[in-house]
Amino acid sequence: MSTFDFGQETEKLLHWLGEFGKDSTGGVSRFLYKPEWVEAQQALAQYMQQAGLVVQYDDVGNLFGRLAGSVYPEETILTGSHVDTVKNGGLYDGQFGIIAGIIALKYLQQEYGQPLRNIEVVSMAEEEGSRFPYAFWGVKNILGLARRADVEDMEDFAGISFTEAMGKAGFRFRPEGSAVRQDLQAFVEVHVEQGGVLEAENKSVGIVEHIVGQRRFTVEITGEANHAGTTPMGYRKDAIYAASRIICAIMDITASYGDPLVATVGKVELEPNIVNVVPGKALFTLDARHTHKEVLAGFTEAVTARMRQIAGQAGVKIDIDMWMDAEPVPMDTAIVEVLKKQCEQNGLSYKMMHSGAGHDSQIMAPFIPTAMLFVPSHKGISHSPLEYTAPRDLAAGVQALAGALYELAYK
Amino acid sequence: MSTFDFGQETEKLLHWLGEFGKDSTGGVSRFLYKPEWVEAQQALAQYMQQAGLVVQYDDVGNLFGRLAGSVYPEETILTGSHVDTVKNGGLYDGQFGIIAGIIALKYLQQEYGQPLRNIEVVSMAEEEGSRFPYAFWGVKNILGLARRADVEDMEDFAGISFTEAMGKAGFRFRPEGSAVRQDLQAFVEVHVEQGGVLEAENKSVGIVEHIVGQRRFTVEITGEANHAGTTPMGYRKDAIYAASRIICAIMDITASYGDPLVATVGKVELEPNIVNVVPGKALFTLDARHTHKEVLAGFTEAVTARMRQIAGQAGVKIDIDMWMDAEPVPMDTAIVEVLKKQCEQNGLSYKMMHSGAGHDSQIMAPFIPTAMLFVPSHKGISHSPLEYTAPRDLAAGVQALAGALYELAYK
Repeated sequence: MSTFDFGQETEKLLHWLGEFGKDSTGGVSRFLYKPEWVEAQQALAQYMQQAGLVVQYDDVGNLFGRLAGSVYPEETILTGSHVDTVKNGGLYDGQFGIIAGIIALKYLQQEYGQPLRNIEVVSMAEEEGSRFPYAFWGVKNILGLARRADVEDMEDFAGISFTEAMGKAGFRFRPEGSAVRQDLQAFVEVHVEQGGVLEAENKSVGIVEHIVGQRRFTVEITGEANHAGTTPMGYRKDAIYAASRIICAIMDITASYGDPLVATVGKVELEPNIVNVVPGKALFTLDARHTHKEVLAGFTEAVTARMRQIAGQAGVKIDIDMWMDAEPVPMDTAIVEVLKKQCEQNGLSYKMMHSGAGHDSQIMAPFIPTAMLFVPSHKGISHSPLEYTAPRDLAAGVQALAGALYELAYK
Repeated sequence: MSTFDFGQETEKLLHWLGEFGKDSTGGVSRFLYKPEWVEAQQALAQYMQQAGLVVQYDDVGNLFGRLAGSVYPEETILTGSHVDTVKNGGLYDGQFGIIAGIIALKYLQQEYGQPLRNIEVVSMAEEEGSRFPYAFWGVKNILGLARRADVEDMEDFAGISFTEAMGKAGFRFRPEGSAVRQDLQAFVEVHVEQGGVLEAENKSVGIVEHIVGQRRFTVEITGEANHAGTTPMGYRKDAIYAASRIICAIMDITASYGDPLVATVGKVELEPNIVNVVPGKALFTLDARHTHKEVLAGFTEAVTARMRQIAGQAGVKIDIDMWMDAEPVPMDTAIVEVLKKQCEQNGLSYKMMHSGAGHDSQIMAPFIPTAMLFVPSHKGISHSPLEYTAPRDLAAGVQALAGALYELAYK
């Protein structure tokens, strides 16, 4: 590692790639198939070629850079992440996973020459769902899961169709039914944590064991809108009072479960929402996440029962609609062990943890042995121009990745 | 009373007057100085004249119909209410107080001839603040409290100035500093309850002892917006959780005070108000009302202290802004006694109560001995085309009023 300063190299490349789609607020807005997205992929392709990688796009614009294996050309170890960003995003989300992969490959090639198996870094087309209301377009095409019919008629905010946007960028739908890659043996994604746990615990690397499952609900409470002055308390069916009691109960139950369960009431809306009228309606959302399916189900059932009980006591009507139920995704235990060993051997401070956010890895994991490495997000800030990870932590992430890729592809 | 069916007569006149400003939804929209308002006052003036009353407008358009007294011409007993409505209002709010007064005067004149003191019924120009952001224009002019400078530059939604609207209707500002009437000895206002207490308790008449004082607050809680998935519960500063605990505490404290205290959280707004973000800000309003100043002050002080305590425990910042502090207004105990006796003598079912809403009487009371009679609002519905009061209850209100005016003006 003498010739590589992983931290400095990573920072330099993150700022370079962040110029594509840089917006007036200092953030990065790089949406699928936009000119700045095309330019970013082209620049990455050129950089990969200069680094000695064999470059290839798939139909939809996922970009792969390959370091070919000498003994098992039908086996590929994949790393990378997504090149698109949210609106006004930061320099680290997505980008870092691509840059980390490129630097790791450069390093491995320089230090150890050709691997036994192929190693590829992928710059995936899309993950965020920022331009069209469809997320994970990149990884779903690698796996043959994306369907043309689901997206072709979608329009972006300017009224441009998915099909038109894709065509202008020079790409096309993957022929449905065509074969998907059979050579992928493993996927290792490096990503920023998007939370504050690693920083708070002063760790450089997080090794993800599970990506949480999520259940999302909209809860509508119907009481009775009444005059704030002329309606005695005993005559009221106050929707916000019932909602407040329910929110407190949700948080009490959540606390009784403890980590890693998280529950969030993110959105509240009242009707009529006027200072001198007792609210007749209160609507709120509940987002609950846990690493284990049964625990998540048990929690949401307990909460649902308690919500109905409180609504009954308060004399209000309650409608509970679960509109998302995504199962937790475990990472591959063998690759997790490889990552752990790398951190230990290299003296990197690490933490076994889960991912509370969604990632390309959760789509990949049911099909290909998959694992994830996190690096700290300063103050937990995510999806913001204020995203920041210190160079020493970036370096630790790249080092752990490079070590793992060595274990997986050179032995 | 043999020749009068108070209920039938009242219903007939309410429907007749409700034609002026009748809108497409079946409601009444009769705003200050609009053509339909002018026509309503003109029609009322004509009806009063036909009923043998001497009719007079003041400068700003308050309309008075007088039954002159034989012995004390310098003493006047006043009744009536406001002729304007809210947008899409009902047939009872305001109107009923005017109609009740006219019918009571017709009845008294027919049964008992000329009173000793003058009795006047007033159709006040404005109370609701529906056209211009200024309420109680009518009564404040009677008392010499309204100031030209406060309203002359106000514009309605169509951009018409107060001064222009007034001029077009044929009225003018009361010369400031000119003498106000010294002859007013008492004011008795009949009004719909705008709440559901009388109906629930099966009473025909409410005798108001106090109009409540009101304090209004905006409370802003600042926590920290965080990712719903990657932020463990222990790392959060959740503004809606703190707000929910505070709202529950407010309602607990309110319950411990009991009637007539009412407290309402009518408006809640979150930032960013997104399903998968822990809310960083929660803003809510608190409207608290009570008949006694010290109790209202004590309650809001207790609530304020508790809000700060919960915010401190939750680690969030709290800003509490009291932007309204209107004192309670007691009614005149002597007139209240007269009303009570009338209900008892006439076998009317009545309830001693307070008004939780504001009325012309609260402006009048500090200057002129004042009292109010309520009749039931079906289901408590107010400011809606669905306002309804049964004829027998309308009749009871008019009967109680007529009896009280007899006591005040004929003895």
